Amino acid sequence: MILIADNLTVTNSAIAKAISDMDPGPIQDLVFQCERAGAEAIDINPGPLTKDPEEKMTFLVAAVQSVCGLPLLLDTINPKALEAGLRVSLNPVIINGFSLEPKKLEFILPLAKQYDADIIGYLLYPNGHVPAGEDDLTQIALDLYGEFKKKGMDDNRLIIDPVVAPLMWENGMRHNRNILSLIQNLPDLFGFPVRTIAGLSNLTSGPGPSGKKRLAEQTFIPMLASAGLTYGLLNVLLPETLRTARMSHMLLNTDVFSWVAAP
Amino acid sequence: MILIADNLTVTNSAIAKAISDMDPGPIQDLVFQCERAGAEAIDINPGPLTKDPEEKMTFLVAAVQSVCGLPLLLDTINPKALEAGLRVSLNPVIINGFSLEPKKLEFILPLAKQYDADIIGYLLYPNGHVPAGEDDLTQIALDLYGEFKKKGMDDNRLIIDPVVAPLMWENGMRHNRNILSLIQNLPDLFGFPVRTIAGLSNLTSGPGPSGKKRLAEQTFIPMLASAGLTYGLLNVLLPETLRTARMSHMLLNTDVFSWVAAP
Repeated sequence: MILIADNLTVTNSAIAKAISDMDPGPIQDLVFQCERAGAEAIDINPGPLTKDPEEKMTFLVAAVQSVCGLPLLLDTINPKALEAGLRVSLNPVIINGFSLEPKKLEFILPLAKQYDADIIGYLLYPNGHVPAGEDDLTQIALDLYGEFKKKGMDDNRLIIDPVVAPLMWENGMRHNRNILSLIQNLPDLFGFPVRTIAGLSNLTSGPGPSGKKRLAEQTFIPMLASAGLTYGLLNVLLPETLRTARMSHMLLNTDVFSWVAAP
Repeated sequence: MILIADNLTVTNSAIAKAISDMDPGPIQDLVFQCERAGAEAIDINPGPLTKDPEEKMTFLVAAVQSVCGLPLLLDTINPKALEAGLRVSLNPVIINGFSLEPKKLEFILPLAKQYDADIIGYLLYPNGHVPAGEDDLTQIALDLYGEFKKKGMDDNRLIIDPVVAPLMWENGMRHNRNILSLIQNLPDLFGFPVRTIAGLSNLTSGPGPSGKKRLAEQTFIPMLASAGLTYGLLNVLLPETLRTARMSHMLLNTDVFSWVAAP
Protein backbone atom coordinates (compact mmCIF):
# COMPACT_ATOMS: atom_id res chain seq x y z
CA MET A 1 0.00 0.00 0.00
CA ILE A 2 1.38 3.37 -1.06
CA LEU A 3 0.73 6.01 1.60
CA ILE A 4 -0.86 9.31 0.62
CA ALA A 5 -1.21 12.14 3.16
CA ASP A 6 -4.74 13.53 3.49
CA ASN A 7 -3.46 16.18 5.89
CA LEU A 8 -3.26 19.15 3.52
CA THR A 9 -6.95 19.98 3.62
CA VAL A 10 -9.07 23.07 3.99
CA THR A 11 -10.82 21.41 6.95
CA ASN A 12 -7.61 22.17 8.90
CA SER A 13 -8.23 25.79 9.91
CA ALA A 14 -4.53 26.75 9.77
CA ILE A 15 -4.42 25.51 6.18
CA ALA A 16 -7.70 27.27 5.34
CA LYS A 17 -6.17 30.52 6.60
CA ALA A 18 -2.91 29.95 4.71
CA ILE A 19 -4.83 29.39 1.48
CA SER A 20 -6.93 32.46 2.10
CA ASP A 21 -3.83 34.60 2.88
CA MET A 22 -1.76 32.93 0.13
CA ASP A 23 0.86 32.24 2.81
CA PRO A 24 3.04 29.25 1.82
CA GLY A 25 4.68 28.84 5.28
CA PRO A 26 2.08 26.72 7.12
CA ILE A 27 1.45 24.67 3.96
CA GLN A 28 5.12 23.89 3.47
CA ASP A 29 5.60 23.11 7.18
CA LEU A 30 2.81 20.57 7.00
CA VAL A 31 4.19 19.04 3.80
CA PHE A 32 7.61 18.65 5.49
CA GLN A 33 5.95 16.89 8.43
CA CYS A 34 4.02 14.55 6.15
CA GLU A 35 7.06 13.66 4.08
CA ARG A 36 9.13 13.06 7.23
CA ALA A 37 6.34 10.82 8.60
CA GLY A 38 6.54 8.66 5.48
CA ALA A 39 3.99 10.09 3.03
CA GLU A 40 4.66 8.90 -0.52
CA ALA A 41 2.23 11.37 -2.12
CA ILE A 42 0.33 14.48 -1.00
CA ASP A 43 -3.38 15.10 -1.50
CA ILE A 44 -4.07 18.81 -1.97
CA ASN A 45 -7.64 19.45 -0.86
CA PRO A 46 -8.51 23.16 -0.94
CA GLY A 47 -12.29 22.59 -1.03
CA PRO A 48 -14.43 23.86 -3.91
CA LEU A 49 -12.46 27.17 -4.20
CA THR A 50 -15.44 29.29 -5.16
CA LYS A 51 -13.26 32.43 -5.02
CA ASP A 52 -10.17 32.77 -7.27
CA PRO A 53 -9.95 29.04 -8.03
CA GLU A 54 -7.12 29.29 -10.55
CA GLU A 55 -4.98 31.66 -8.53
CA LYS A 56 -5.44 29.62 -5.34
CA MET A 57 -4.67 26.24 -6.89
CA THR A 58 -1.66 27.64 -8.75
CA PHE A 59 -0.38 29.04 -5.46
CA LEU A 60 -0.95 25.75 -3.65
CA VAL A 61 0.75 23.53 -6.21
CA ALA A 62 3.68 25.94 -6.45
CA ALA A 63 3.99 26.10 -2.64
CA VAL A 64 4.04 22.31 -2.31
CA GLN A 65 6.25 21.39 -5.23
CA SER A 66 8.85 24.02 -4.36
CA VAL A 67 9.66 21.99 -1.23
CA CYS A 68 8.58 18.45 -2.13
CA GLY A 69 9.03 16.15 -5.12
CA LEU A 70 6.25 13.69 -4.24
CA PRO A 71 3.28 12.99 -6.53
CA LEU A 72 0.37 15.35 -5.94
CA LEU A 73 -3.34 14.57 -5.87
CA LEU A 74 -5.40 17.54 -6.97
CA ASP A 75 -8.51 17.10 -4.87
CA THR A 76 -11.27 19.55 -5.73
CA ILE A 77 -14.61 19.44 -7.50
CA ASN A 78 -13.79 22.76 -9.22
CA PRO A 79 -12.69 22.06 -12.83
CA LYS A 80 -11.10 25.52 -13.19
CA ALA A 81 -8.95 24.94 -10.13
CA LEU A 82 -8.05 21.47 -11.37
CA GLU A 83 -6.98 22.73 -14.76
CA ALA A 84 -4.88 25.49 -13.19
CA GLY A 85 -3.19 22.89 -10.98
CA LEU A 86 -2.57 20.58 -13.93
CA ARG A 87 -1.02 23.42 -15.92
CA VAL A 88 1.59 24.26 -13.29
CA SER A 89 2.32 20.79 -11.87
CA LEU A 90 5.89 19.63 -12.36
CA ASN A 91 5.51 16.70 -9.95
CA PRO A 92 3.58 13.61 -11.11
CA VAL A 93 -0.10 14.38 -10.66
CA ILE A 94 -3.36 12.50 -10.04
CA ILE A 95 -6.77 14.12 -10.54
CA ASN A 96 -9.01 13.42 -7.53
CA GLY A 97 -11.48 12.75 -9.02
CA PHE A 98 -14.50 11.97 -11.15
CA SER A 99 -17.65 9.88 -10.72
CA LEU A 100 -20.83 9.15 -12.69
CA GLU A 101 -22.14 12.59 -11.69
CA PRO A 102 -22.89 14.28 -15.07
CA LYS A 103 -20.90 17.44 -14.26
CA LYS A 104 -17.81 15.40 -13.41
CA LEU A 105 -18.07 13.32 -16.57
CA GLU A 106 -18.41 16.51 -18.59
CA PHE A 107 -15.89 18.81 -16.94
CA ILE A 108 -13.40 16.73 -14.95
CA LEU A 109 -12.82 13.45 -16.77
CA PRO A 110 -11.78 15.21 -20.02
CA LEU A 111 -8.98 17.00 -18.12
CA ALA A 112 -7.29 13.62 -17.57
CA LYS A 113 -7.22 13.06 -21.33
CA GLN A 114 -6.14 16.60 -22.10
CA TYR A 115 -3.28 16.59 -19.56
CA ASP A 116 -2.47 12.85 -19.88
CA ALA A 117 -2.94 12.47 -16.13
CA ASP A 118 -3.94 9.67 -13.76
CA ILE A 119 -7.47 10.08 -12.46
CA ILE A 120 -9.40 8.64 -9.52
CA GLY A 121 -12.93 7.41 -10.20
CA TYR A 122 -15.35 7.26 -7.27
CA LEU A 123 -17.88 4.44 -7.11
CA LEU A 124 -20.95 6.56 -6.38
CA TYR A 125 -24.40 6.84 -7.93
CA PRO A 126 -24.77 9.74 -10.41
CA ASN A 127 -26.39 11.69 -7.54
CA GLY A 128 -23.26 11.25 -5.39
CA HIS A 129 -24.70 8.69 -2.96
CA VAL A 130 -22.94 5.52 -1.82
CA PRO A 131 -24.25 2.38 -3.60
CA ALA A 132 -26.81 0.39 -1.61
CA GLY A 133 -25.40 -3.11 -2.12
CA GLU A 134 -22.74 -5.30 -3.69
CA ASP A 135 -24.53 -5.62 -7.05
CA ASP A 136 -24.94 -1.86 -7.41
CA LEU A 137 -21.30 -1.31 -6.42
CA THR A 138 -20.15 -3.71 -9.15
CA GLN A 139 -22.49 -2.20 -11.74
CA ILE A 140 -21.26 1.30 -10.94
CA ALA A 141 -17.64 0.15 -11.32
CA LEU A 142 -18.50 -1.20 -14.79
CA ASP A 143 -20.44 1.94 -15.75
CA LEU A 144 -17.61 4.17 -14.55
CA TYR A 145 -15.06 2.17 -16.51
CA GLY A 146 -17.34 2.44 -19.57
CA GLU A 147 -17.44 6.24 -19.29
CA PHE A 148 -13.68 6.32 -18.77
CA LYS A 149 -13.08 4.30 -21.96
CA LYS A 150 -15.58 6.43 -23.95
CA LYS A 151 -13.21 9.35 -23.45
CA GLY A 152 -10.39 7.35 -25.05
CA MET A 153 -8.43 6.94 -21.82
CA ASP A 154 -5.74 4.30 -21.29
CA ASP A 155 -6.52 1.65 -18.65
CA ASN A 156 -3.33 2.47 -16.78
CA ARG A 157 -4.59 6.01 -16.04
CA LEU A 158 -7.50 4.79 -13.91
CA ILE A 159 -7.54 4.49 -10.12
CA ILE A 160 -10.79 3.27 -8.52
CA ASP A 161 -11.96 4.64 -5.17
CA PRO A 162 -14.76 2.44 -3.80
CA VAL A 163 -15.42 5.06 -1.07
CA VAL A 164 -14.99 3.86 2.51
CA ALA A 165 -18.13 4.64 4.52
CA PRO A 166 -18.18 5.91 8.10
CA LEU A 167 -18.74 2.99 10.50
CA MET A 168 -21.62 4.91 12.03
CA TRP A 169 -23.63 5.06 8.80
CA GLU A 170 -26.71 2.87 8.68
CA ASN A 171 -25.20 0.60 6.01
CA GLY A 172 -21.58 1.55 6.65
CA MET A 173 -20.48 -1.83 7.98
CA ARG A 174 -21.99 -3.78 5.07
CA HIS A 175 -20.68 -1.30 2.53
CA ASN A 176 -17.14 -1.53 3.90
CA ARG A 177 -17.26 -5.33 3.68
CA ASN A 178 -18.54 -5.03 0.11
CA ILE A 179 -15.61 -2.85 -0.87
CA LEU A 180 -13.15 -5.43 0.48
CA SER A 181 -14.56 -8.01 -1.97
CA LEU A 182 -14.77 -5.47 -4.75
CA ILE A 183 -11.12 -4.40 -4.41
CA GLN A 184 -10.13 -8.04 -4.63
CA ASN A 185 -12.39 -8.73 -7.63
CA LEU A 186 -11.80 -5.57 -9.69
CA PRO A 187 -8.79 -6.89 -11.66
CA ASP A 188 -10.90 -9.85 -12.84
CA LEU A 189 -13.92 -7.65 -13.44
CA PHE A 190 -12.00 -5.15 -15.59
CA GLY A 191 -9.54 -7.65 -17.06
CA PHE A 192 -6.42 -5.72 -16.06
CA PRO A 193 -4.66 -4.95 -12.76
CA VAL A 194 -6.52 -1.70 -12.06
CA ARG A 195 -5.18 0.40 -9.21
CA THR A 196 -7.38 1.22 -6.21
CA ILE A 197 -7.41 3.87 -3.50
CA ALA A 198 -9.32 4.24 -0.24
CA GLY A 199 -9.64 7.17 2.15
CA LEU A 200 -9.23 5.85 5.67
CA SER A 201 -10.14 8.95 7.64
CA ASN A 202 -13.73 8.58 6.44
CA LEU A 203 -14.06 5.30 8.37
CA THR A 204 -14.10 6.98 11.76
CA SER A 205 -15.47 10.43 10.87
CA GLY A 206 -17.95 11.92 13.30
CA PRO A 207 -17.83 11.80 17.09
CA GLY A 208 -16.24 8.85 18.90
CA PRO A 209 -13.43 7.99 21.31
CA SER A 210 -10.03 8.47 19.65
CA GLY A 211 -8.50 5.23 21.03
CA LYS A 212 -11.28 3.16 19.49
CA LYS A 213 -11.11 5.17 16.26
CA ARG A 214 -7.41 4.38 15.92
CA LEU A 215 -8.08 0.69 16.61
CA ALA A 216 -10.82 0.59 13.95
CA GLU A 217 -8.43 2.16 11.40
CA GLN A 218 -5.56 -0.13 12.38
CA THR A 219 -7.85 -3.13 11.96
CA PHE A 220 -9.36 -2.09 8.63
CA ILE A 221 -6.05 -1.11 6.99
CA PRO A 222 -4.62 -4.68 6.94
CA MET A 223 -7.94 -5.90 5.52
CA LEU A 224 -7.80 -3.36 2.70
CA ALA A 225 -4.12 -4.09 2.09
CA SER A 226 -4.77 -7.82 2.00
CA ALA A 227 -7.60 -7.26 -0.51
CA GLY A 228 -4.98 -5.66 -2.77
CA LEU A 229 -5.49 -1.92 -2.24
CA THR A 230 -2.86 0.13 -4.10
CA TYR A 231 -3.08 3.50 -2.30
CA GLY A 232 -4.13 4.40 1.23
CA LEU A 233 -5.16 8.04 1.72
CA LEU A 234 -4.82 8.76 5.41
CA ASN A 235 -3.66 11.04 8.20
CA VAL A 236 0.07 10.25 8.07
CA LEU A 237 0.63 12.09 11.34
CA LEU A 238 -0.98 9.27 13.32
CA PRO A 239 2.14 7.19 14.05
CA GLU A 240 0.38 3.94 15.03
CA THR A 241 -1.90 4.03 11.99
CA LEU A 242 1.09 4.59 9.75
CA ARG A 243 3.08 1.78 11.38
CA THR A 244 0.16 -0.58 10.75
CA ALA A 245 0.03 0.45 7.09
CA ARG A 246 3.78 -0.12 6.75
CA MET A 247 3.65 -3.49 8.50
CA SER A 248 0.75 -4.48 6.21
CA HIS A 249 2.89 -3.60 3.22
CA MET A 250 5.82 -5.56 4.61
CA LEU A 251 3.79 -8.70 5.36
CA LEU A 252 2.22 -8.66 1.90
CA ASN A 253 5.18 -7.63 -0.25
CA THR A 254 8.43 -8.68 1.36
CA ASP A 255 9.96 -12.13 1.08
CA VAL A 256 12.63 -11.77 3.75
CA PHE A 257 11.55 -10.41 7.12
CA SER A 258 13.84 -8.51 9.44
CA TRP A 259 12.97 -6.93 12.78
CA VAL A 260 15.39 -4.12 12.02
CA ALA A 261 13.57 -3.20 8.80
CA ALA A 262 10.12 -3.72 10.37
CA PRO A 263 8.19 -0.59 11.39
CA MET B 1 -13.06 -15.00 14.74
CA ILE B 2 -13.58 -17.10 17.85
CA LEU B 3 -10.77 -16.54 20.36
CA ILE B 4 -8.97 -19.53 21.86
CA ALA B 5 -6.40 -19.07 24.65
CA ASP B 6 -3.03 -20.69 23.95
CA ASN B 7 -1.86 -19.70 27.43
CA LEU B 8 -2.34 -23.03 29.22
CA THR B 9 0.86 -24.59 27.95
CA VAL B 10 3.73 -26.59 29.36
CA THR B 11 6.13 -23.99 27.94
CA ASN B 12 4.94 -21.76 30.82
CA SER B 13 7.15 -23.01 33.67
CA ALA B 14 4.51 -22.36 36.36
CA ILE B 15 2.09 -24.55 34.41
CA ALA B 16 4.75 -27.22 33.82
CA LYS B 17 5.31 -27.36 37.59
CA ALA B 18 1.57 -27.45 38.34
CA ILE B 19 1.13 -30.40 35.93
CA SER B 20 4.11 -32.17 37.47
CA ASP B 21 2.82 -31.57 41.02
CA MET B 22 -0.82 -32.24 40.04
CA ASP B 23 -1.62 -28.88 41.64
CA PRO B 24 -4.83 -27.40 40.15
CA GLY B 25 -4.37 -23.91 41.67
CA PRO B 26 -2.06 -22.23 39.12
CA ILE B 27 -3.94 -23.90 36.26
CA GLN B 28 -7.31 -22.67 37.46
CA ASP B 29 -5.93 -19.15 38.14
CA LEU B 30 -4.70 -18.96 34.58
CA VAL B 31 -7.99 -20.25 33.19
CA PHE B 32 -9.86 -17.57 35.19
CA GLN B 33 -7.57 -14.90 33.74
CA CYS B 34 -8.07 -16.17 30.20
CA GLU B 35 -11.84 -16.32 30.53
CA ARG B 36 -11.93 -12.83 32.04
CA ALA B 37 -9.78 -11.54 29.17
CA GLY B 38 -12.32 -12.85 26.68
CA ALA B 39 -11.19 -16.38 25.75
CA GLU B 40 -14.02 -18.35 24.15
CA ALA B 41 -12.18 -21.71 24.36
CA ILE B 42 -9.08 -23.04 26.14
CA ASP B 43 -6.27 -25.00 24.50
CA ILE B 44 -4.75 -27.49 26.97
CA ASN B 45 -1.17 -28.13 25.89
CA PRO B 46 0.68 -30.38 28.35
CA GLY B 47 3.36 -31.43 25.85
CA PRO B 48 3.87 -35.08 24.89
CA LEU B 49 3.28 -36.34 28.49
CA THR B 50 5.76 -39.18 28.31
CA LYS B 51 5.16 -39.94 32.01
CA ASP B 52 1.66 -40.85 33.30
CA PRO B 53 -0.13 -39.49 30.21
CA GLU B 54 -3.61 -40.67 31.22
CA GLU B 55 -3.41 -39.53 34.84
CA LYS B 56 -1.99 -36.12 33.87
CA MET B 57 -4.52 -35.38 31.14
CA THR B 58 -7.41 -36.54 33.32
CA PHE B 59 -6.17 -34.23 36.07
CA LEU B 60 -5.83 -31.30 33.65
CA VAL B 61 -9.26 -31.63 32.06
CA ALA B 62 -10.88 -32.05 35.49
CA ALA B 63 -9.00 -29.02 36.86
CA VAL B 64 -10.10 -26.82 33.98
CA GLN B 65 -13.70 -27.92 33.60
CA SER B 66 -14.38 -27.70 37.32
CA VAL B 67 -13.99 -23.90 37.03
CA CYS B 68 -14.80 -23.17 33.38
CA GLY B 69 -17.51 -24.25 30.94
CA LEU B 70 -15.68 -23.21 27.75
CA PRO B 71 -14.85 -25.67 24.94
CA LEU B 72 -11.50 -27.39 25.44
CA LEU B 73 -8.82 -28.18 22.86
CA LEU B 74 -6.84 -31.26 23.80
CA ASP B 75 -3.44 -30.40 22.40
CA THR B 76 -0.96 -33.27 22.63
CA ILE B 77 0.65 -35.74 20.25
CA ASN B 78 0.15 -38.51 22.83
CA PRO B 79 -2.87 -40.67 21.84
CA LYS B 80 -3.17 -42.18 25.33
CA ALA B 81 -3.36 -38.74 26.91
CA LEU B 82 -5.87 -37.64 24.26
CA GLU B 83 -8.11 -40.60 24.88
CA ALA B 84 -8.00 -40.08 28.65
CA GLY B 85 -8.97 -36.43 28.10
CA LEU B 86 -11.80 -37.38 25.75
CA ARG B 87 -13.16 -39.89 28.27
CA VAL B 88 -13.49 -37.33 31.07
CA SER B 89 -14.42 -34.21 29.11
CA LEU B 90 -17.83 -32.80 29.94
CA ASN B 91 -17.19 -29.52 28.11
CA PRO B 92 -17.34 -29.52 24.30
CA VAL B 93 -13.98 -30.78 23.07
CA ILE B 94 -11.73 -30.43 20.02
CA ILE B 95 -8.83 -32.81 19.34
CA ASN B 96 -5.70 -30.80 18.44
CA GLY B 97 -4.82 -32.52 16.17
CA PHE B 98 -3.84 -34.79 13.32
CA SER B 99 -1.86 -34.44 10.09
CA LEU B 100 -0.69 -36.68 7.25
CA GLU B 101 1.98 -38.09 9.57
CA PRO B 102 1.30 -41.87 9.54
CA LYS B 103 1.23 -42.20 13.35
CA LYS B 104 -1.37 -39.45 13.62
CA LEU B 105 -3.56 -40.98 10.93
CA GLU B 106 -3.35 -44.33 12.70
CA PHE B 107 -3.66 -43.35 16.36
CA ILE B 108 -5.19 -39.86 16.60
CA LEU B 109 -7.71 -39.45 13.77
CA PRO B 110 -9.69 -42.57 14.83
CA LEU B 111 -10.25 -41.03 18.27
CA ALA B 112 -12.36 -38.33 16.65
CA LYS B 113 -14.63 -40.98 15.17
CA GLN B 114 -14.72 -43.03 18.35
CA TYR B 115 -15.59 -40.05 20.59
CA ASP B 116 -17.61 -38.13 17.96
CA ALA B 117 -15.35 -35.12 18.49
CA ASP B 118 -14.21 -32.16 16.40
CA ILE B 119 -10.63 -32.52 15.20
CA ILE B 120 -8.04 -30.10 13.87
CA GLY B 121 -6.06 -31.19 10.80
CA TYR B 122 -2.66 -29.58 10.23
CA LEU B 123 -1.53 -28.87 6.68
CA LEU B 124 1.94 -30.40 6.92
CA TYR B 125 3.87 -32.92 4.86
CA PRO B 126 3.77 -36.49 6.26
CA ASN B 127 7.22 -35.75 7.75
CA GLY B 128 5.80 -32.77 9.71
CA HIS B 129 7.39 -30.04 7.59
CA VAL B 130 5.59 -26.92 6.34
CA PRO B 131 4.62 -27.18 2.62
CA ALA B 132 7.00 -25.44 0.24
CA GLY B 133 4.49 -23.57 -1.92
CA GLU B 134 0.87 -22.83 -2.69
CA ASP B 135 0.34 -25.93 -4.87
CA ASP B 136 1.70 -28.26 -2.20
CA LEU B 137 -0.40 -26.56 0.46
CA THR B 138 -3.55 -27.10 -1.61
CA GLN B 139 -2.63 -30.71 -2.39
CA ILE B 140 -2.01 -31.44 1.28
CA ALA B 141 -5.39 -29.97 2.17
CA LEU B 142 -7.03 -32.31 -0.34
CA ASP B 143 -5.02 -35.33 0.84
CA LEU B 144 -5.83 -34.58 4.48
CA TYR B 145 -9.53 -34.25 3.69
CA GLY B 146 -9.31 -37.57 1.81
CA GLU B 147 -7.83 -39.32 4.87
CA PHE B 148 -10.44 -37.69 7.09
CA LYS B 149 -13.29 -38.99 4.90
CA LYS B 150 -11.72 -42.48 4.69
CA LYS B 151 -12.33 -42.79 8.43
CA GLY B 152 -16.04 -42.11 7.87
CA MET B 153 -15.96 -38.69 9.52
CA ASP B 154 -18.62 -36.01 9.02
CA ASP B 155 -17.49 -32.83 7.24
CA ASN B 156 -18.69 -30.69 10.13
CA ARG B 157 -16.14 -32.31 12.49
CA LEU B 158 -13.14 -30.99 10.57
CA ILE B 159 -11.17 -27.82 11.38
CA ILE B 160 -8.19 -27.03 9.14
CA ASP B 161 -5.02 -25.46 10.56
CA PRO B 162 -2.83 -24.20 7.69
CA VAL B 163 0.00 -23.57 10.20
CA VAL B 164 1.20 -19.98 10.49
CA ALA B 165 4.99 -19.82 9.99
CA PRO B 166 7.37 -17.64 11.99
CA LEU B 167 8.13 -14.43 10.06
CA MET B 168 11.82 -15.17 10.47
CA TRP B 169 11.70 -18.48 8.59
CA GLU B 170 13.28 -18.47 5.17
CA ASN B 171 9.93 -18.94 3.42
CA GLY B 172 7.77 -17.71 6.29
CA MET B 173 6.53 -14.57 4.57
CA ARG B 174 5.47 -16.39 1.39
CA HIS B 175 3.92 -19.23 3.35
CA ASN B 176 1.82 -16.85 5.44
CA ARG B 177 0.55 -15.14 2.30
CA ASN B 178 -0.28 -18.55 0.83
CA ILE B 179 -2.35 -19.46 3.86
CA LEU B 180 -4.39 -16.25 3.51
CA SER B 181 -5.46 -17.36 0.01
CA LEU B 182 -5.96 -20.93 1.13
CA ILE B 183 -8.24 -19.98 4.03
CA GLN B 184 -10.34 -17.98 1.61
CA ASN B 185 -10.42 -20.76 -1.01
CA LEU B 186 -10.94 -23.81 1.24
CA PRO B 187 -14.77 -23.69 1.23
CA ASP B 188 -14.74 -23.83 -2.59
CA LEU B 189 -11.98 -26.45 -2.62
CA PHE B 190 -13.82 -28.78 -0.22
CA GLY B 191 -17.35 -27.86 -1.31
CA PHE B 192 -18.61 -27.00 2.19
CA PRO B 193 -17.93 -24.17 4.67
CA VAL B 194 -15.04 -25.89 6.45
CA ARG B 195 -13.86 -24.24 9.65
CA THR B 196 -10.27 -23.01 9.98
CA ILE B 197 -7.91 -22.22 12.85
CA ALA B 198 -4.55 -20.45 13.04
CA GLY B 199 -2.06 -20.16 15.87
CA LEU B 200 -0.92 -16.55 16.06
CA SER B 201 1.88 -16.88 18.58
CA ASN B 202 3.90 -18.82 16.04
CA LEU B 203 4.11 -15.75 13.79
CA THR B 204 6.52 -13.92 16.07
CA SER B 205 8.23 -16.83 17.82
CA GLY B 206 11.96 -16.48 18.37
CA PRO B 207 13.87 -13.38 19.42
CA GLY B 208 12.63 -9.93 18.42
CA PRO B 209 11.47 -6.62 19.93
CA SER B 210 8.10 -7.06 21.64
CA GLY B 211 6.58 -3.81 20.30
CA LYS B 212 7.22 -4.90 16.73
CA LYS B 213 6.02 -8.43 17.49
CA ARG B 214 2.72 -7.05 18.75
CA LEU B 215 2.38 -4.86 15.67
CA ALA B 216 3.04 -7.83 13.36
CA GLU B 217 0.34 -9.86 15.15
CA GLN B 218 -2.11 -6.98 15.16
CA THR B 219 -1.55 -6.53 11.44
CA PHE B 220 -1.83 -10.21 10.50
CA ILE B 221 -4.97 -10.91 12.59
CA PRO B 222 -7.28 -8.66 10.52
CA MET B 223 -5.87 -10.27 7.35
CA LEU B 224 -6.67 -13.76 8.66
CA ALA B 225 -10.08 -12.64 9.87
CA SER B 226 -10.86 -11.04 6.53
CA ALA B 227 -9.84 -14.26 4.74
CA GLY B 228 -12.56 -15.99 6.77
CA LEU B 229 -10.63 -17.63 9.63
CA THR B 230 -13.00 -19.27 12.15
CA TYR B 231 -10.74 -19.64 15.21
CA GLY B 232 -7.74 -17.64 16.36
CA LEU B 233 -5.47 -19.44 18.85
CA LEU B 234 -3.51 -16.77 20.65
CA ASN B 235 -2.15 -15.32 23.88
CA VAL B 236 -5.37 -13.78 25.21
CA LEU B 237 -3.44 -11.93 27.91
CA LEU B 238 -2.04 -9.47 25.35
CA PRO B 239 -4.77 -6.78 25.58
CA GLU B 240 -3.94 -4.94 22.32
CA THR B 241 -3.78 -8.17 20.32
CA LEU B 242 -7.12 -9.23 21.73
CA ARG B 243 -8.71 -5.85 21.03
CA THR B 244 -7.58 -6.12 17.42
CA ALA B 245 -9.11 -9.59 17.12
CA ARG B 246 -12.38 -8.33 18.57
CA MET B 247 -12.46 -5.28 16.35
CA SER B 248 -11.78 -7.56 13.35
CA HIS B 249 -14.74 -9.67 14.35
CA MET B 250 -16.92 -6.60 14.76
CA LEU B 251 -15.99 -5.08 11.39
CA LEU B 252 -16.62 -8.37 9.60
CA ASN B 253 -19.71 -9.63 11.39
CA THR B 254 -21.73 -6.74 12.77
CA ASP B 255 -24.22 -4.70 10.79
CA VAL B 256 -24.74 -1.87 13.25
CA PHE B 257 -21.63 -0.24 14.70
CA SER B 258 -21.52 1.41 18.11
CA TRP B 259 -18.53 2.96 19.83
CA VAL B 260 -19.88 1.74 23.17
CA ALA B 261 -19.89 -1.89 22.00
CA ALA B 262 -16.54 -1.52 20.17
CA PRO B 263 -13.44 -2.94 21.90
